[in-house]
Amino acid sequence: MSHANAPSPHHVVIIGCGFGGLEAARALNHPRVRITLVDRSNHHLFQPLLYQVATAGLSAPSIAAPIRHMLRKQRNVTVLMAEVTGIAKDRRQVLLADGQAIAYDSLIVAAGATHSYFGRDDWAEHAPGLKTLGDAFQLRAKLLSAFERAEVTADEAERKALLNFIVIGAGPTGVEMAGTLAEIARHTLRHEFRRIDPGQAQVMLLEGSDRVLQAFKPGLSTKARQQLEGLGVRVETGARVVAIDADGVELEQGGERRRIAARTVVWAAGVAASPLGRQLEVPLDRAGRVIVDGSLNIPGHQEVFVVGDLAAALSHEKDGTTQPVPGVSPGAKQMGRHAARQILARLSGRPALPPFRYLDYGALATIGRKAAVADVGRWQFSGYFAWLFWLFVHIYFLIGFRNRLVVLMDWAWAYWSFQRYARVIAEPAPLQADRA
Amino acid sequence: MSHANAPSPHHVVIIGCGFGGLEAARALNHPRVRITLVDRSNHHLFQPLLYQVATAGLSAPSIAAPIRHMLRKQRNVTVLMAEVTGIAKDRRQVLLADGQAIAYDSLIVAAGATHSYFGRDDWAEHAPGLKTLGDAFQLRAKLLSAFERAEVTADEAERKALLNFIVIGAGPTGVEMAGTLAEIARHTLRHEFRRIDPGQAQVMLLEGSDRVLQAFKPGLSTKARQQLEGLGVRVETGARVVAIDADGVELEQGGERRRIAARTVVWAAGVAASPLGRQLEVPLDRAGRVIVDGSLNIPGHQEVFVVGDLAAALSHEKDGTTQPVPGVSPGAKQMGRHAARQILARLSGRPALPPFRYLDYGALATIGRKAAVADVGRWQFSGYFAWLFWLFVHIYFLIGFRNRLVVLMDWAWAYWSFQRYARVIAEPAPLQADRA
Repeated sequence: MSHANAPSPHHVVIIGCGFGGLEAARALNHPRVRITLVDRSNHHLFQPLLYQVATAGLSAPSIAAPIRHMLRKQRNVTVLMAEVTGIAKDRRQVLLADGQAIAYDSLIVAAGATHSYFGRDDWAEHAPGLKTLGDAFQLRAKLLSAFERAEVTADEAERKALLNFIVIGAGPTGVEMAGTLAEIARHTLRHEFRRIDPGQAQVMLLEGSDRVLQAFKPGLSTKARQQLEGLGVRVETGARVVAIDADGVELEQGGERRRIAARTVVWAAGVAASPLGRQLEVPLDRAGRVIVDGSLNIPGHQEVFVVGDLAAALSHEKDGTTQPVPGVSPGAKQMGRHAARQILARLSGRPALPPFRYLDYGALATIGRKAAVADVGRWQFSGYFAWLFWLFVHIYFLIGFRNRLVVLMDWAWAYWSFQRYARVIAEPAPLQADRA
Repeated sequence: MSHANAPSPHHVVIIGCGFGGLEAARALNHPRVRITLVDRSNHHLFQPLLYQVATAGLSAPSIAAPIRHMLRKQRNVTVLMAEVTGIAKDRRQVLLADGQAIAYDSLIVAAGATHSYFGRDDWAEHAPGLKTLGDAFQLRAKLLSAFERAEVTADEAERKALLNFIVIGAGPTGVEMAGTLAEIARHTLRHEFRRIDPGQAQVMLLEGSDRVLQAFKPGLSTKARQQLEGLGVRVETGARVVAIDADGVELEQGGERRRIAARTVVWAAGVAASPLGRQLEVPLDRAGRVIVDGSLNIPGHQEVFVVGDLAAALSHEKDGTTQPVPGVSPGAKQMGRHAARQILARLSGRPALPPFRYLDYGALATIGRKAAVADVGRWQFSGYFAWLFWLFVHIYFLIGFRNRLVVLMDWAWAYWSFQRYARVIAEPAPLQADRA
C-alpha cells in the first residue's frame, strides 16, 4: 500500500524536534507532503549551549524557541506537543499518550538520547545530567544553592563538602561545565560572600579513560587539560566512579579506592538512545541505537527512517569504506535532510539517493574564558583564537536573529563584567501547606 | 540591655529582601551598623513585572537579581539565604530552619505577603496566584500548555474548556493578566496553529465588586473596562466566585449561579500577610498584618520594626489626620527607609524622627498593548499616553542598568513583532523512572 500517487498529500510523521527532526521538517516543505511533527516539549533546544543555562550565563529563552513559532510559515506542518508512547509499524501508526493513533505514510523517528547511568539509575538523584531545560534549571539551582548553603552553615565539614564540585566525564559537556564552574567560583562570586571565600571551592573533573576530550586528537587533549588546570580545575584521569550517594563520590584510581565528600555532582559521562527505539522491534546496537541502512531506513520498512542520536548510522565514504557517524548536531542535521530528500525522491519517482555520507566539519570544545580547542580538518588549534572561533560558530548556528543578537550581547557583557546574569534560583511553586 | 554604645557595631537583622528590606539595608550603610539580611530566596524580585514573566514577555533574570550581588559593595551586609522559622523577641533572636539562632540588637521584619484564598486553600491547586518566580513559571507553563493541549485533543468540549481563561480579581495584577492573555490569543499565537484558532480563546475577568481597579478613581475604572473590552476581554463585575475545581469556576452573579468550564484559572483576588507576623505575638489586623506605631515599632519593643506588606501602618498627615498606607512598593520602600533612619537616629543619640508619613506618588496600571490608566496627583489619564508613562516608570525603577536596557529592548521587539520571546515550557526534571 503506497499513498505516493494518491491525490491527498503524502503524510510524514516526525517524532522529535531536535536538530534532526527540525531539519527534516524544513527539507519537506513541499506541496505533495503534509507533516505532523510530534515533540513532548514545546521548544527546539540549542543543546550545545545548554550548559550556559545551567551555569547562569544565559537565560532559557535565548537557546530555546517554540517549535510552532519557528515553523509558523511552513503551512504544511502541524505541530503537536504530545508524548509518543508507541509505534505500530505494521499498521503504520504512531500512538500518543492520550490514546490517539496517528496514521503515517512515512515516519521519521528523531527522538534523540537521554542520560545513561550504565545501569546505576540510583545515581541519577545525586548526579543529575544535562539534556533538557528542566535539567539545566535543576543544576543551576543546585550549584548556586551550594554556595548559599556554605555561607549559612555552621558545620565546617558540611561547608567543605558544599564547596566541592565534581563533574563526571570529560567529554565536551563535562569540560565546559568544569571550566565554567571554576570561573564562577574564582571570578563571578568573588567579593559577594562574607563568611566563605568562593575561591576556595574545589572543582574536580573525573574521567575514566586516560585523557580528556577522547574524541579529539591527543595533542588537543593535552592542551585542554593544561587550560583546565590553568583555570583551577583538578583533572583526574583513569578515575573510575564506583559509587555516588548523598555524601559524595567513591572512585577507583590506580588500584586504590577513595571517597570525596561533595554536595554537587554533575553527570556528563554517558548517553543512551531514547527508549522509543525499542518500539520499532528491529536490531539495536549496544547503546540502544537503531541500526539503519544507507537510506537511514530500518530493515524491511522503506517508509520508516531513524535519524540523529537514536540512529546507529554509517557514513559511506568515497573510497568505499564506512565509518560510524558521530553523535553531534551536524550529523543529526545531515541525517534529517537525507531522510527528507529520500522521501521526496520516492514521491516524484526519482532514483534513490546514494547512501548516506557524513560531512565532517570538525570538532570544537570550549573550556572557559578565552580557552577552547578546535579540530577542523587539517587544523588543530587551542587557546584564545579557538575560543573566538567557538563563539563565532555557536552564534552563527543559533536559531533566529534575535537570539543571536541577545546571546552576543550577553557574552560581551559577561566578558567585561565577569558576571553571569541569570543567577536566579527559581523556587519551586510552594506546597499547598505553605500557602497561608 | 542596649548595645548602642558598645564598641562592636550595632547588629541589625532584616528578614526579607523585597522593596522594604532592600531599602532598609541600603539606608543602613553606616560604619556603626552591621547587617544580617535573611531571605528564603537568593534574589530580589521586581514584582510589578512578574506578570510579564508569567505571560512569556520577559525572562526571569530580567526582573530578578541576586541579593548578594546587588549588595556586594556594601561591606557591612551579610546575606543569608535561609528560612526563618521563628522570632524570639524577648531573647532578641531570629531562629533559622537549620536550628541556628541569630542574635540581634535591632530587627526589621519585611517578610511581605502571600496569596489568600479566604480560607479556601483547596482552590490554590486549580487557581494559582502570582507572588514568586516559581509561581510565574508554573503559570506560564499552564497557559502555554492549554493552547498546546487544545491543538492536540480530539474532544470538542475539552478543547473549548482549554481555550477558556479565567482571571479572578480585577486589581492591577488581574487587569494586566487578562489584557495580556487576550493579546497572546489574538496576536502572538496567530498563524501558529493548524487545528484551532487561538483567536477563539475567551478571556474572562471576574470581579466581586462593582468595578475594576477599585483603588483608582471611578472614571479610570470605566476607562480600564473599555480598554479591556476593546482587547477582547469579557469583564464580569459583581461576580462572586463560590467554587473552583479541576473543571472550572462556579460563580454567583445577580442572584444566579452558573458554572464556566475552564482549564486555566488565575488567582489575583487576595493577599494575606506572611505568617511570620504571628511569631511576634502582638495585635494583628484582619488581614494578618502587624499593627505598628508611628515609628513602625511593635508595642513595647522599640528594637523591632515591621515594614512593607506585613505592616498595618498609618500615614501621619500634615493636618494631623492619619490614613492607612497602601500595599504598594513605594509604601514598602518608604517604610524601610524610615525604620533604618530611626535606628541610626537612636544610635547617634539624635531625636526620634517624626511619625511615618507616606508620600503618595499616584497609581498606575497597564491593561495591554497601548492601554493603561494613570492616577497621578491631580492628573488622571488613560490610553496610549498612560501606557508610555507606565513603560517609562517601570523601566526607571527596575534594578540595574543592564536590566533596564534588556527590558527596554525586549519591549521594543515585542511591540514591533507582536511576539513574546520567552514562550518556553521548561519541563520539570524527569522522574527517576523516566531515565532509561
